[in-house]
Amino acid sequence: MADDTDALAGAQAFVFDVFGTVVDWQGSVSAALRARTEGAADEDWVAFAKEWRQGYYETTRRVAQGGAGPGNVDVMHREILDRMLASERWQHLARLWADEERRELVLIWHRLDGWPDASEGLYALKNKAIIGTLSNGNVRLLVDMAKHADLPWDVVFAGDLLGSYKPNPKMYLGAVRHLGLRPEQVVMVAAHIADLRAAASHGLRTVYVRRPTEDAPTVRADVRAKAVGGEVDAVVDSFAELAALVG
Amino acid sequence: MADDTDALAGAQAFVFDVFGTVVDWQGSVSAALRARTEGAADEDWVAFAKEWRQGYYETTRRVAQGGAGPGNVDVMHREILDRMLASERWQHLARLWADEERRELVLIWHRLDGWPDASEGLYALKNKAIIGTLSNGNVRLLVDMAKHADLPWDVVFAGDLLGSYKPNPKMYLGAVRHLGLRPEQVVMVAAHIADLRAAASHGLRTVYVRRPTEDAPTVRADVRAKAVGGEVDAVVDSFAELAALVG
Repeated sequence: MADDTDALAGAQAFVFDVFGTVVDWQGSVSAALRARTEGAADEDWVAFAKEWRQGYYETTRRVAQGGAGPGNVDVMHREILDRMLASERWQHLARLWADEERRELVLIWHRLDGWPDASEGLYALKNKAIIGTLSNGNVRLLVDMAKHADLPWDVVFAGDLLGSYKPNPKMYLGAVRHLGLRPEQVVMVAAHIADLRAAASHGLRTVYVRRPTEDAPTVRADVRAKAVGGEVDAVVDSFAELAALVG
Repeated sequence: MADDTDALAGAQAFVFDVFGTVVDWQGSVSAALRARTEGAADEDWVAFAKEWRQGYYETTRRVAQGGAGPGNVDVMHREILDRMLASERWQHLARLWADEERRELVLIWHRLDGWPDASEGLYALKNKAIIGTLSNGNVRLLVDMAKHADLPWDVVFAGDLLGSYKPNPKMYLGAVRHLGLRPEQVVMVAAHIADLRAAASHGLRTVYVRRPTEDAPTVRADVRAKAVGGEVDAVVDSFAELAALVG
């Protein structure tokens, strides 16, 4: 992708979406659930993880638009879990997990595994620029995740720190302001085109990372860099590729 | 100090004052000023640095108590510098530094050198607990400093992120809340007894670090751990000693 080599010139900081972009929530959550439920190994734990994640997505989006909802994703993950375990599809699992187990299940989201290229790619990029999270997760969750998956963030921008959730402008503009930079000096990195469109609408530059579980396959296939007529500044398949793009 | 070994049992996070506790502002700022002013090598740059620092201390304290003042320490450092260069004592230096040079001088405060034990001690402690800043500096300043002095923070708590300055309660209680911990699970580390007294008043535990330029010599000499009748949880002379206290 030689067309991308100047696309990030002048960038001083990279802020990352975390769930799905840096860590594999679907694989990690489904594996952790399977490991905790010996008697239910043939349950569809990927479907369970996806529904849990979808509830999170819908709730953060509602809160970002000014609606009611928890300001902390641990509280949010617990509420969604309780709702799922009262639903027709999953109620047969409710007996497996009392209050204490459910509190522990919520913490699965603090210890997700990085995609294979994530840690090494971030170390490489950290030598060239400021790297940080820009996630709807809360600070503690992101700190636990960084220690678990060896993610060497320079700074953690989180929903509970900036007082909202993406795609609320507070998130993108808050990160830019605290970094003391202009929007075009900050690059949003995500595996979700919606996140990048919101970032771009506030002047940030954008890198799309193709991840196998994120966005629809047609979106991943069709996304293009501006240099070839697309809408993002660069498209990569790994953080190693991203680090190589930065001078 | 065998009496201190259990003083920090159960601590899950350590938050650090930065100026003076982690980095040597006095030596770094005076050396940087001297290096930038060849024609004025025999000026008392330590006195200049101290007055600059004192202005910062007074302004952050006033803002912390609800008074007016900049919410960003870069702006604050510039205002104090301009005031100093208009004062009788330093006005002969004003001609050396036009607007652009003054903007660069403010950035000296982003690149202070760590005390000799700081980086290595923080790496050791990071393997055992969460480590973060709890500083009146702004995010960008603290991120630049971490890169310059190799300070591997898990999280950066800063005045501009938490919306005040120490000793305002927002700072101590904000860090505790975002870490998802109880106050007694968080340890404030500082070379300033006033900072530790404020932290303790909100239930945090406290470690005093003796640094040659910080607090009055009598304070440094007299401070004692609770185990021997004093007011802080532990007293150390280096971060290596601190890391060794943590199980």
